[in-house]
Amino acid sequence: MHIGIITIGNELTSGRIQDANTAFLARQFHLQGWQVVASLSVGDEEEMIAAALAFILPRAETVIVTGGLGPTADDITTAALAHIFGLPLITDEETLQHIRGIFTRYGLKWTPNNAKQAVFPQGAEIIANPTGTAPGFSLRREGKVIAVIPGVPAEVRRMVPAGVVPLLKRAFPGHARHTAVRTLKTFGLSEAAVDQAVAGVELAGVEIGFYPRFPENHIVLSVRDEHDEAAARARLAAVEEEVRRRLDRYIFARDGETLEGVVGALLRDQGRTIAVAESCTGGLVTDRLTDVPGSSAYLERGLTTYSNRAKMELLGVPEEVLQAHGAVSEETARLMAEGVRLRSGTDLGLATTGIAGPDGGSESKPVGTVYIALADGVETRCRHYRYRWERRRIKMIASQAALLMVKRYLAGDEDPL
Amino acid sequence: MHIGIITIGNELTSGRIQDANTAFLARQFHLQGWQVVASLSVGDEEEMIAAALAFILPRAETVIVTGGLGPTADDITTAALAHIFGLPLITDEETLQHIRGIFTRYGLKWTPNNAKQAVFPQGAEIIANPTGTAPGFSLRREGKVIAVIPGVPAEVRRMVPAGVVPLLKRAFPGHARHTAVRTLKTFGLSEAAVDQAVAGVELAGVEIGFYPRFPENHIVLSVRDEHDEAAARARLAAVEEEVRRRLDRYIFARDGETLEGVVGALLRDQGRTIAVAESCTGGLVTDRLTDVPGSSAYLERGLTTYSNRAKMELLGVPEEVLQAHGAVSEETARLMAEGVRLRSGTDLGLATTGIAGPDGGSESKPVGTVYIALADGVETRCRHYRYRWERRRIKMIASQAALLMVKRYLAGDEDPL
Repeated sequence: MHIGIITIGNELTSGRIQDANTAFLARQFHLQGWQVVASLSVGDEEEMIAAALAFILPRAETVIVTGGLGPTADDITTAALAHIFGLPLITDEETLQHIRGIFTRYGLKWTPNNAKQAVFPQGAEIIANPTGTAPGFSLRREGKVIAVIPGVPAEVRRMVPAGVVPLLKRAFPGHARHTAVRTLKTFGLSEAAVDQAVAGVELAGVEIGFYPRFPENHIVLSVRDEHDEAAARARLAAVEEEVRRRLDRYIFARDGETLEGVVGALLRDQGRTIAVAESCTGGLVTDRLTDVPGSSAYLERGLTTYSNRAKMELLGVPEEVLQAHGAVSEETARLMAEGVRLRSGTDLGLATTGIAGPDGGSESKPVGTVYIALADGVETRCRHYRYRWERRRIKMIASQAALLMVKRYLAGDEDPL
Repeated sequence: MHIGIITIGNELTSGRIQDANTAFLARQFHLQGWQVVASLSVGDEEEMIAAALAFILPRAETVIVTGGLGPTADDITTAALAHIFGLPLITDEETLQHIRGIFTRYGLKWTPNNAKQAVFPQGAEIIANPTGTAPGFSLRREGKVIAVIPGVPAEVRRMVPAGVVPLLKRAFPGHARHTAVRTLKTFGLSEAAVDQAVAGVELAGVEIGFYPRFPENHIVLSVRDEHDEAAARARLAAVEEEVRRRLDRYIFARDGETLEGVVGALLRDQGRTIAVAESCTGGLVTDRLTDVPGSSAYLERGLTTYSNRAKMELLGVPEEVLQAHGAVSEETARLMAEGVRLRSGTDLGLATTGIAGPDGGSESKPVGTVYIALADGVETRCRHYRYRWERRRIKMIASQAALLMVKRYLAGDEDPL
């Protein structure tokens, strides 16, 4: 099956935002074995929307349109499509009640322009939007499907696998394929090194893709089979096993898992608790740990001890250590990890200290110097890192290294990385 | 002037990489006052490249083509364009020597396919590539310009301002424009409400765009003038003043500023310090504050007191209060803010407590219930919020409300929001 993608919005043609939907959509369709023939971005103008449709429709069985479904005056996608296809616009009462219900439930002020999101071209089939107010819809014209969804990336990510792909599978049953996909998430190797490490592992019909997601590098294995789902899965499993054999130490999660989720599951399964003392990561380690539902079961506290006073008062780091070795030192990192563990009564204490920059670096401790320590009451692991990158990325990569140290510890790995 | 963008590569139509060039190009052209009528991505296929050109050429004076200039067999852009325009391919000896020189200088092994990057359609004007091996080129056809550059984002970022924009200014001297742009960032109103509030403020030639960036809504005002930069700026200032008059309380930053940056600058300018006690936001408020370089000057500590024990030990919240009112209550929020302020010796204490979900909600305190408090030693402000959204978004919106409470306090606004 051939698909065309049309993304609509002046924010795209003016470069105000980077279109994240096209790549996501293309990937989803590629994994189904469907071919994206072209993607187009046009502004919120009926003439250009019509031109984009006229470009795609002769070349594809399906067109996906995103964007321009909001309540504001510049959102014209629905009206433009109705006009282009000569269809009247009809308010869907059920959708209107649903949107009004959202406003009532959350005490939002109703303004009349919100009713626009309940209006559809006659004959449209509605595509549910579980995360936003504006549903999508699909139209059928001459055996082809035009599926229209909002442009909000979080909504696209929910609606495409839940609504659009099943719709297209029903509309074009001959084009369904058995696919098996596995994402392996790595940390600690460059994209080129990951690429080199897995060179030659391909099996017939298994495709390998590399996707850097700072600070992670993801490996995506995918396999399609026209007839036999079990065969596809078996080929995928064989390649996954070989990739794991080569890169095991660097793989920390798979598919939808996150590092903080993996760490959380290990803590929960092992009945252990943790407390965190942060300096250079500035709360990001704690923020990530608390992104996991139920994290209060194992995270007792997370202290961003930014001042020396806080390091002394809350963690018991002696002033002499701070003066002799500095706040950014292995000595301080170890005492922070041991101090937060002892004072919070947890099984583990994790600490970060470093120089996130842009100022504060020196010859011996340049910007990007980071110490990470993990204490369990018997031993304290400590590791020294030196990162390039700017402030935010130093925080991100240091938080990753800190969480990975916990993951390796809990998995019984002697080497922290 | 109207411009069309064509990006070429199978890695785009398969979703293997996200196209970063289109947004960059569109932004560069928008700032020149040139209008991007459409952007298209197609695979490495001559037929689709020809179709994309046929779509753009009647609608624009200029086409920018990126991608497919590399040395490998799938890079067909140059040959395809030569074929489409009926031009022979010619090796440019100077470029060939230049590429060979790069290989010699860096000790790279020369392979014959690299010579492909020195081949151009007859009559092409070469566009220098200061960071890569493959130069770009431009063709003129019937008064129009087709500019072709590599798809490597780092090369695009160098070649467009240094080569492509000057080339287009020379080719179309009548299309240079003066532009002025202002972004106003709002929080606390829905996109629809922002839209309605600014209805009718347009002045001739001033364009208003709305861009939701959860949990913020951005308003972008842009104005272009053919002759007079001062006139453009004056019109922009008049519209900005009117938007500010209507939405002042909801505007927290402009252009590249962030809320945490604005709060940081206010704290620094006023010589005040702050400490944070977080529960439901789980470290995110502190993480955002520490994203600002130099934040150690005013952030003393940020404590994620996830357990009741931590709230008692580190903030002095009495056990009776936690038992009588619960950890998620106005009483606890106030005591957290007062406690963290007192114990850290800062001017201000900021606290959040709430239910981020998905579990832990009740009839009287559903998921999304959040209390935010700010103490200064004289009075303590506290506000109760109830958010929809899921866990991460509740953390994001609550951290925004907390930082905005600080901003309003420092700006002398009596009402916390």
